[in-house]
Amino acid sequence: MSPGTLVHVGEQKIDKARITLINYDEDRLEEKELKRIEESFAYKDTPPVTWINIDGLHDIELIEKVGTRFETHSLTMEDIVNTGQRPKVEDFEDYIYLVFKMLKFDETTSHIASEQVSLILGPHYLISFQETEGDVFNFVRERIRKGRVHIRKSGPDYLAYALIDAVVDHYFSILEKAGERIEHIEERLHEQPTPEILQNIYDLKRELIYFRKQVWPIREVLSTWQKTESSIIQEANKVFISDVYDHTIQVIDTIESFRDIISGMMDLYLSTVSNKMNEVMKVLTIIATIFIPLTFVAGIYGMNFKYMPELEWKWSYLLLWVLLIVIFCGMLLYFRRKKWL
Amino acid sequence: MSPGTLVHVGEQKIDKARITLINYDEDRLEEKELKRIEESFAYKDTPPVTWINIDGLHDIELIEKVGTRFETHSLTMEDIVNTGQRPKVEDFEDYIYLVFKMLKFDETTSHIASEQVSLILGPHYLISFQETEGDVFNFVRERIRKGRVHIRKSGPDYLAYALIDAVVDHYFSILEKAGERIEHIEERLHEQPTPEILQNIYDLKRELIYFRKQVWPIREVLSTWQKTESSIIQEANKVFISDVYDHTIQVIDTIESFRDIISGMMDLYLSTVSNKMNEVMKVLTIIATIFIPLTFVAGIYGMNFKYMPELEWKWSYLLLWVLLIVIFCGMLLYFRRKKWL
Amino acid sequence: MSPGTLVHVGEQKIDKARITLINYDEDRLEEKELKRIEESFAYKDTPPVTWINIDGLHDIELIEKVGTRFETHSLTMEDIVNTGQRPKVEDFEDYIYLVFKMLKFDETTSHIASEQVSLILGPHYLISFQETEGDVFNFVRERIRKGRVHIRKSGPDYLAYALIDAVVDHYFSILEKAGERIEHIEERLHEQPTPEILQNIYDLKRELIYFRKQVWPIREVLSTWQKTESSIIQEANKVFISDVYDHTIQVIDTIESFRDIISGMMDLYLSTVSNKMNEVMKVLTIIATIFIPLTFVAGIYGMNFKYMPELEWKWSYLLLWVLLIVIFCGMLLYFRRKKWL
Amino acid sequence: MSPGTLVHVGEQKIDKARITLINYDEDRLEEKELKRIEESFAYKDTPPVTWINIDGLHDIELIEKVGTRFETHSLTMEDIVNTGQRPKVEDFEDYIYLVFKMLKFDETTSHIASEQVSLILGPHYLISFQETEGDVFNFVRERIRKGRVHIRKSGPDYLAYALIDAVVDHYFSILEKAGERIEHIEERLHEQPTPEILQNIYDLKRELIYFRKQVWPIREVLSTWQKTESSIIQEANKVFISDVYDHTIQVIDTIESFRDIISGMMDLYLSTVSNKMNEVMKVLTIIATIFIPLTFVAGIYGMNFKYMPELEWKWSYLLLWVLLIVIFCGMLLYFRRKKWL
Amino acid sequence: MSPGTLVHVGEQKIDKARITLINYDEDRLEEKELKRIEESFAYKDTPPVTWINIDGLHDIELIEKVGTRFETHSLTMEDIVNTGQRPKVEDFEDYIYLVFKMLKFDETTSHIASEQVSLILGPHYLISFQETEGDVFNFVRERIRKGRVHIRKSGPDYLAYALIDAVVDHYFSILEKAGERIEHIEERLHEQPTPEILQNIYDLKRELIYFRKQVWPIREVLSTWQKTESSIIQEANKVFISDVYDHTIQVIDTIESFRDIISGMMDLYLSTVSNKMNEVMKVLTIIATIFIPLTFVAGIYGMNFKYMPELEWKWSYLLLWVLLIVIFCGMLLYFRRKKWL
Repeated sequence: MSPGTLVHVGEQKIDKARITLINYDEDRLEEKELKRIEESFAYKDTPPVTWINIDGLHDIELIEKVGTRFETHSLTMEDIVNTGQRPKVEDFEDYIYLVFKMLKFDETTSHIASEQVSLILGPHYLISFQETEGDVFNFVRERIRKGRVHIRKSGPDYLAYALIDAVVDHYFSILEKAGERIEHIEERLHEQPTPEILQNIYDLKRELIYFRKQVWPIREVLSTWQKTESSIIQEANKVFISDVYDHTIQVIDTIESFRDIISGMMDLYLSTVSNKMNEVMKVLTIIATIFIPLTFVAGIYGMNFKYMPELEWKWSYLLLWVLLIVIFCGMLLYFRRKKWL
Repeated sequence: MSPGTLVHVGEQKIDKARITLINYDEDRLEEKELKRIEESFAYKDTPPVTWINIDGLHDIELIEKVGTRFETHSLTMEDIVNTGQRPKVEDFEDYIYLVFKMLKFDETTSHIASEQVSLILGPHYLISFQETEGDVFNFVRERIRKGRVHIRKSGPDYLAYALIDAVVDHYFSILEKAGERIEHIEERLHEQPTPEILQNIYDLKRELIYFRKQVWPIREVLSTWQKTESSIIQEANKVFISDVYDHTIQVIDTIESFRDIISGMMDLYLSTVSNKMNEVMKVLTIIATIFIPLTFVAGIYGMNFKYMPELEWKWSYLLLWVLLIVIFCGMLLYFRRKKWL
Repeated sequence: MSPGTLVHVGEQKIDKARITLINYDEDRLEEKELKRIEESFAYKDTPPVTWINIDGLHDIELIEKVGTRFETHSLTMEDIVNTGQRPKVEDFEDYIYLVFKMLKFDETTSHIASEQVSLILGPHYLISFQETEGDVFNFVRERIRKGRVHIRKSGPDYLAYALIDAVVDHYFSILEKAGERIEHIEERLHEQPTPEILQNIYDLKRELIYFRKQVWPIREVLSTWQKTESSIIQEANKVFISDVYDHTIQVIDTIESFRDIISGMMDLYLSTVSNKMNEVMKVLTIIATIFIPLTFVAGIYGMNFKYMPELEWKWSYLLLWVLLIVIFCGMLLYFRRKKWL
Repeated sequence: MSPGTLVHVGEQKIDKARITLINYDEDRLEEKELKRIEESFAYKDTPPVTWINIDGLHDIELIEKVGTRFETHSLTMEDIVNTGQRPKVEDFEDYIYLVFKMLKFDETTSHIASEQVSLILGPHYLISFQETEGDVFNFVRERIRKGRVHIRKSGPDYLAYALIDAVVDHYFSILEKAGERIEHIEERLHEQPTPEILQNIYDLKRELIYFRKQVWPIREVLSTWQKTESSIIQEANKVFISDVYDHTIQVIDTIESFRDIISGMMDLYLSTVSNKMNEVMKVLTIIATIFIPLTFVAGIYGMNFKYMPELEWKWSYLLLWVLLIVIFCGMLLYFRRKKWL
Repeated sequence: MSPGTLVHVGEQKIDKARITLINYDEDRLEEKELKRIEESFAYKDTPPVTWINIDGLHDIELIEKVGTRFETHSLTMEDIVNTGQRPKVEDFEDYIYLVFKMLKFDETTSHIASEQVSLILGPHYLISFQETEGDVFNFVRERIRKGRVHIRKSGPDYLAYALIDAVVDHYFSILEKAGERIEHIEERLHEQPTPEILQNIYDLKRELIYFRKQVWPIREVLSTWQKTESSIIQEANKVFISDVYDHTIQVIDTIESFRDIISGMMDLYLSTVSNKMNEVMKVLTIIATIFIPLTFVAGIYGMNFKYMPELEWKWSYLLLWVLLIVIFCGMLLYFRRKKWL
């Protein structure tokens, strides 16, 4: 693609784009769902905070209009609609562009599903773009509605922080799921190693590789934000970003620990399987080693030679049994001494 | 959770929060247990050092009062009650906030238990928050009581150092435990590799992964402290922090060495098991390889063909025994030459 | 080789070097194929942008002429014709020299083929050198022809960016191919592990090692470009380079993830093979363990001793069958209890 | 322990502390063994160089006296007697404190033994503390006695360098030992892999982990020294420290190479064992696969059915032998084609 | 050893040290072989470039004379004769000292042989020290003789660059050899994995570890040179050093890729061996599993019970054969369904 062409890359997850607008300051709150994006244009330069949320990235025309009205760089518009972006933050002086991934653990497929979230942070507005209607931001909306002191008093940069915080907090729930799966696998490993456990370990490892790939860059994003000197970001709010940064590091730390544990589980699985095989081999060897010589002895006296003096003796059959039992017990003792039994 | 809401995250480990206060300078010492936190409020700005220790984080109301009186940031209060914090230090100008983990090796479960410790270090006071009553800080209390010169002469930053030092020193005892377990496993590996050893290696590895995850960030915490330019921290006391820093590095170094050794033990275990299996296989092969041909020969002369001239010969049975013994010895020699015996 | 000697290192991939020239500004476009390189010399200092593209590096004389006319450093000329260069960017004040690799996935050989691309970026011109005629740059040509606003308005540094962007975008198609191959291998691993899968995993790993080696240095190249203070590069265009840089990081991230996944697949393969073997061993052991004792019993009563009372009894044959069936069933039960069946 | 309390941590390796003093300048040399540490106190501020060496760290009283007279920080005194220190250098303005490890390869136990060495480097004196009387410093003493130009002309910082240099040079002898052991193991691996080799590889790996842990921090120590701006260290002598630094890097490089080689040896061992097992399996399989069908055939004609026409034929025994030989040779050919023989 | 003592460490590779001198400027060239080092002393301060090359480091006296005349630091002299140096560059203001390794692939032993090269670079002279007469520098000599423009016009720093460039270019030939060996091993792995391949992989890995250890520090050396501010090095020539630097990085990149490929080959080898073993096991299992039950059946009817009704029936022998064939075919079908055949 040529740079600057707006083409939606990714799956269309929603039928029609949905636009909501929240305009608030400490005392006042206006919330509405827009039919046309043009209704939001008046809010661009009005002083209190306006949050425009757009769900659905396939409506190129709509997004182009936003780009034109809010005077965003062509690269920004391109990144918004291309859902394969790496998380990043870019300072375009008039606005700051942020893109990162919202992650969800999909119970049905046992996969982590990702959704791209873009934020355009201007002096008086914040525009957020999501692939589909999500419930992660609802909590932030609730807080705004409840007239909570801090968010209503702060500018759009605090709102941006609140959204990122909501997303990063959600990562912990995925970590928890992963932690549960690890414990589940460990328990089953204790009981009986089966090929399904192996597949589970491999799947979990893959999911963590994916998880890590998505979370890792957010570390840089937040670190860059903290260093950004921009009139849009208030210094006093940077301490909050530093807090999310710490959470991100914690997520990454835990992923790394999980990876270490998983590699340990793999070793444990392999060793357990190899131990089982060892046991199987021992049984085979003991049985074969005991009975093969006995069978040989029986074979000897099954021969039809005319002159086999032992065959004629009266007690030879009894003696043979004695011999067989001696061999048998000797072998058992030998194996017990070798600690195979 | 919304930022700024105080919710205790973690297990409640104690029934009722316990508050102790120690106020001292070079000559004077006042120590008391408080019933209400308000009794401590007078000490906020009084010049000598006041150490307020609070055991138990579930009493949100109490902690909120502390936050209001000592004018701490809402994020700080949140971090104190959320026991899943990553160790960190934050300079809020009026005070410095420090959070880290106290670790204990629990003999009964063979697990490392962690407890979160928060410190609020102000110009004349130090407030410490623990999840439960611990004995690690008792030693520091003893020193204060004994009128030891240095701690009584120094400010609250030295007290903070003394507390961190006590915690980090405790890490060494966990290292010792881990070292003992390594030696124990090594000894048993020498004797006989069993699946329990495997499980032990895996458990130990897991504990070390956890240990490392808790200790690693303390390195950054102390390094940040050393670089902090604050009127609360006296330059002359930074050399002590540098000393704890060195101890932390040493703990981390040792954990890394342990991890290397454990991965070596895993290899050793696997190879020993595979060696044992090899030995089993050899025994099986030798027995089978010797007796299968012998049994075949016996089988031949057990056949009932009418015309088998050998059966009629007088010495054939004797000759057969000679043949069998020759095969037997030949095989033995062959295996000895191959170094299987 | 002595530095400064022009010797073409690498395979000659094209018969005759081909020279094309595009000269354009916002309003005007001139495009022609040159027979002699001298025809381009007039364009060196003429203000709008001139793009000279040379396909084929074996014509040393031609390249020497370019070097003389455009006053390039002897090292630059040497690097252009030596196709084993590591990607790099060098600022020679009068011009900037860039060398990197165009990569293609060759469907027939399943290998990644690389081609070296050099760019000489002057104040008013851009000279590009390719090993063979490629189609990756065609798209850029189309954009210039179409009178697209941005590229026609910008200087040669934007043109250079457009070329690099085209090359890096092409990397993603290779990633896609690799992703498909990974999924293909995973599916087949599920079904049946065969030695061909092993070979496929190994081949894929090798290709990724090669891919990574080629892409990794481009990261540095772009980062250096961004830091280059040169009158040739307009500050405003650096944001585009930063965009390609992000894409490169994304390619590298994905390669790393793929490597992790492949190493996981290798483990999975080995464990699956070892599981299969385990199963084989179990079947062998069960059959052998059941029938060897039975055969021994049969062997006993095949002996020809004169005095074997059992042989004479009426019901002994029936009893023997009962005994055999009891042994057989006992064994089966034992194995079922051991979860081998 | 409370900071500032002097408690000897570590094994007491010597009966009675031994104090020697060497005072020298270019022209003069005074060497004596002291009975009481007080005899050395006069030398503190006298201009030429005085080297006080104390063997044995258990005499706390003695060391406390040194600390009082030479006005050292309480942390320094603590570090000297605690033999579990991590190597470090600390600038206390009046003096520089250095602690590092002297390592010896103990032939009897095949272990690396470490001994802690502390140096207090003042403007006119150098105090060295060792755990036991060693021979590594003797060489430096010899040089001072011989009136060697450089050391007699230089200050105590050069003397400190000479001591460190002696210690680091000694590391190379341990590397040599390790190198010899690696070659020894490699040779034996070629011949026959045994479980003892495995144990040797593991032991060697463990020693190298320990070695690396001790040497690694010295790198930082020397690098810090080079950056130290202190009137005690002459700029001109820093080039010597840079030389020891290079040696340390070389030691570390070699340890890393050794670790790589050892991990390769482990792989080689495992593969060789697995190859041996393969060979064993093949022999078993060949013997069993050849004789089991033959034995079956013999078993058939050992049956006692009344109507078995073959048993009556004249040539059937001969034919049977032909059949057996054909099966035998066919099997052999089959295995040869499969390259198992 | 005491610092400053000249002792030749390493093998003496040449009988008698050989001294050659080349003095040149743009127009003039003087080349001669010296009998005594003193003949070169006059050239120290004469303006054009003088290159003194000394082959053989065991003649301590000779090297001491050079040191005295050219006023080099005692550490420099020591490093020259100690052939175990780590590559480094040191700026001694009057001269720059460079030491690095010339590497050759020795076809007979299949090992990489290293030779230490030291350069003393003064304002008007360059002294090079080699362990033995080599042919790598001949090419540089040729270029000087041919009156090539650049080298004759430039100062001794360009000459130093030319020598380093010759050495680094030679590294590529070793890489090529390694690449060939990798391809050779890969081909043979395809055909049949043998223990010799294993040994080859291990040997190659070891050589690459050695290679890497030697090349890695050169990266730092060149990077330090580039940063050196010295009147001896002309700024304009630094671009050449940057070129060699890039080559070194390329060598290191390729070594790393090779290491990755080799570790992949090791995995491939192990898996292939394990696959072969699997196949062997299957054959054994199939044969044993088919014939053991058959032999049991034959054994049953070989028993000598008086009352075995089946033995008397007319068709029982035929029926038995039918039974045996049914069992045989059933087994085969079972194994085919399990995909073992």
